[in-house]
Amino acid sequence: MFLFNEDEIRGCVCLNHSAIEQVEEGFTQLSQGQVVLPPMMRIDIPEHHGEVDVKTAYMKGLDTFAIKVSSGFFDNKALGLPSLSGMMILLHSVTGVPEAVLMDNGYLTDIRTACAGAIAAKYLAKAHVEIAGVIGTGVQARLQMEALHMMRPFKRLLVYGRRAEAVDAYIGEMSAKLGIACEAAPAEEVVRQSDVVVTTTPSREPIVQREWLHEGLHLTAMGADTELKQELDAEVFRKADRIVCDVKAQCLKYGELHHASDHGVLQNEDARMVELGALTAKAVPGRENDQQITLCDLTGTGVQDTAIARYAFERLVKMKTV
Amino acid sequence: MFLFNEDEIRGCVCLNHSAIEQVEEGFTQLSQGQVVLPPMMRIDIPEHHGEVDVKTAYMKGLDTFAIKVSSGFFDNKALGLPSLSGMMILLHSVTGVPEAVLMDNGYLTDIRTACAGAIAAKYLAKAHVEIAGVIGTGVQARLQMEALHMMRPFKRLLVYGRRAEAVDAYIGEMSAKLGIACEAAPAEEVVRQSDVVVTTTPSREPIVQREWLHEGLHLTAMGADTELKQELDAEVFRKADRIVCDVKAQCLKYGELHHASDHGVLQNEDARMVELGALTAKAVPGRENDQQITLCDLTGTGVQDTAIARYAFERLVKMKTV
Repeated sequence: MFLFNEDEIRGCVCLNHSAIEQVEEGFTQLSQGQVVLPPMMRIDIPEHHGEVDVKTAYMKGLDTFAIKVSSGFFDNKALGLPSLSGMMILLHSVTGVPEAVLMDNGYLTDIRTACAGAIAAKYLAKAHVEIAGVIGTGVQARLQMEALHMMRPFKRLLVYGRRAEAVDAYIGEMSAKLGIACEAAPAEEVVRQSDVVVTTTPSREPIVQREWLHEGLHLTAMGADTELKQELDAEVFRKADRIVCDVKAQCLKYGELHHASDHGVLQNEDARMVELGALTAKAVPGRENDQQITLCDLTGTGVQDTAIARYAFERLVKMKTV
Repeated sequence: MFLFNEDEIRGCVCLNHSAIEQVEEGFTQLSQGQVVLPPMMRIDIPEHHGEVDVKTAYMKGLDTFAIKVSSGFFDNKALGLPSLSGMMILLHSVTGVPEAVLMDNGYLTDIRTACAGAIAAKYLAKAHVEIAGVIGTGVQARLQMEALHMMRPFKRLLVYGRRAEAVDAYIGEMSAKLGIACEAAPAEEVVRQSDVVVTTTPSREPIVQREWLHEGLHLTAMGADTELKQELDAEVFRKADRIVCDVKAQCLKYGELHHASDHGVLQNEDARMVELGALTAKAVPGRENDQQITLCDLTGTGVQDTAIARYAFERLVKMKTV
């Protein structure tokens, strides 16, 4: 069995088109019924503000699949530790034998989550994106804008964050990385001015309001992944022409769709609602014109984990054997 | 993070009274509402006759908990590989950070499963056991009889298995190990003659019949852990004075109780049915006289995994630092 540490994994895997392609292929297979995707497992440890998720997916015909363990413990900052940690285990699909443990501390989750954002933008953003906006200033706020820039090379980036220093650091880093103008703005202005917006916070109070939405907007919400998190006001969904999500059952339980559904804004059988895989499999068209308003709710799925773990493993083994 | 291999783990952990005590304490905590126990996760890979289970449990107040991945792939024998493999991951309860990966290939599962059998016998077998019986000739057939012998030092062991060579090997090994007479017998005779019987097979057809049960018998069924497995005819449950199981919800889904319930022999609210933890916590008495017939259905729970992983880790770290 192979054991790889975070440095080795970071040395082999970054956000690029081939990683995105692997994740996209995973979504396609999911939509074609080629994936065994059990519901995620969650262990709550409320006394330490912690939760551990276990996700997995087996894609039929592939020789390995991943089981991912990811922790979020929100008192860790006070202890000088990162909030997130975790690992992926790659098992052989024919024998069940563990092939590798990827001690990535959540890095591969960051990458595969950004890949899903890129795929959403590929199918749902307008062909020409001038201004992009982001809500939040953390790791995903960075990666999602990198991913979006690969799909739609926008010219200007607007960012909203609650802490001024975090916003300043974000602006310095991202304007250099993407080589474009990057500016702070209130959340409302970020949404009103941008062609594409990604929300990336663990907020428990809705930030984005219905009135802010405008013709042509694509908005991806990737922060909410438990019942209590919410970035979009439920009313936002009334204005959407197309509502895309990674896995319907999971988003209706843990994502933005959950709140929209609770508020009666969205019914289970709403024809506007489709899974991302239906787009990547070309079973359903993505954006159809520059006027539509499109939303995408991402909660993160085992399919992405298996796709990125397989991709990483292949590159890591090559590196070891060269 | 520590990584331990199977040899290291085997060198530190064996079936003994202190391992049993740890597992017993886990059951007690479970019955007292001190355990977070999510439903198990299962990935089925029918094209390779494989299944992967993920189990976990967090015991409140303890500084670590385990997540276990265990594979059963039943075409592996043809490839010269063992059917079972797996590992346990120990996470810190306060930070979520992985502390250790125990690459035990299912060894710790074997031990904690035998511990549960010992606990069932401790509370449910007659005080004096002369003859013990076992159905099956595999690893658990061995460990369960060792565990039982620690609790009730019986004088004679009867074994039933389908393959004569396997039975012969079992008899040779176990008579030497326990220092007692060990003989082959048909399944019916094993049950009719023994004071305690443990069934340990992955059978999909019920073996044990109602007519075979007799006054004073305790029977533990630990083979069935998926919907299709069954060792006891559903009618067997009609004759039981006390029906114990590890986790009611899980046994009613995957264990012998599932079949008994399907056949209408057992209702959800049957007063005869209690969880093992209620016995270990002394909330409910075990066997009350030498005439009762008692059954115990074990499907295996994350509580046992966390208990044994913590026990193993403590010993492994001591070994490394001495």
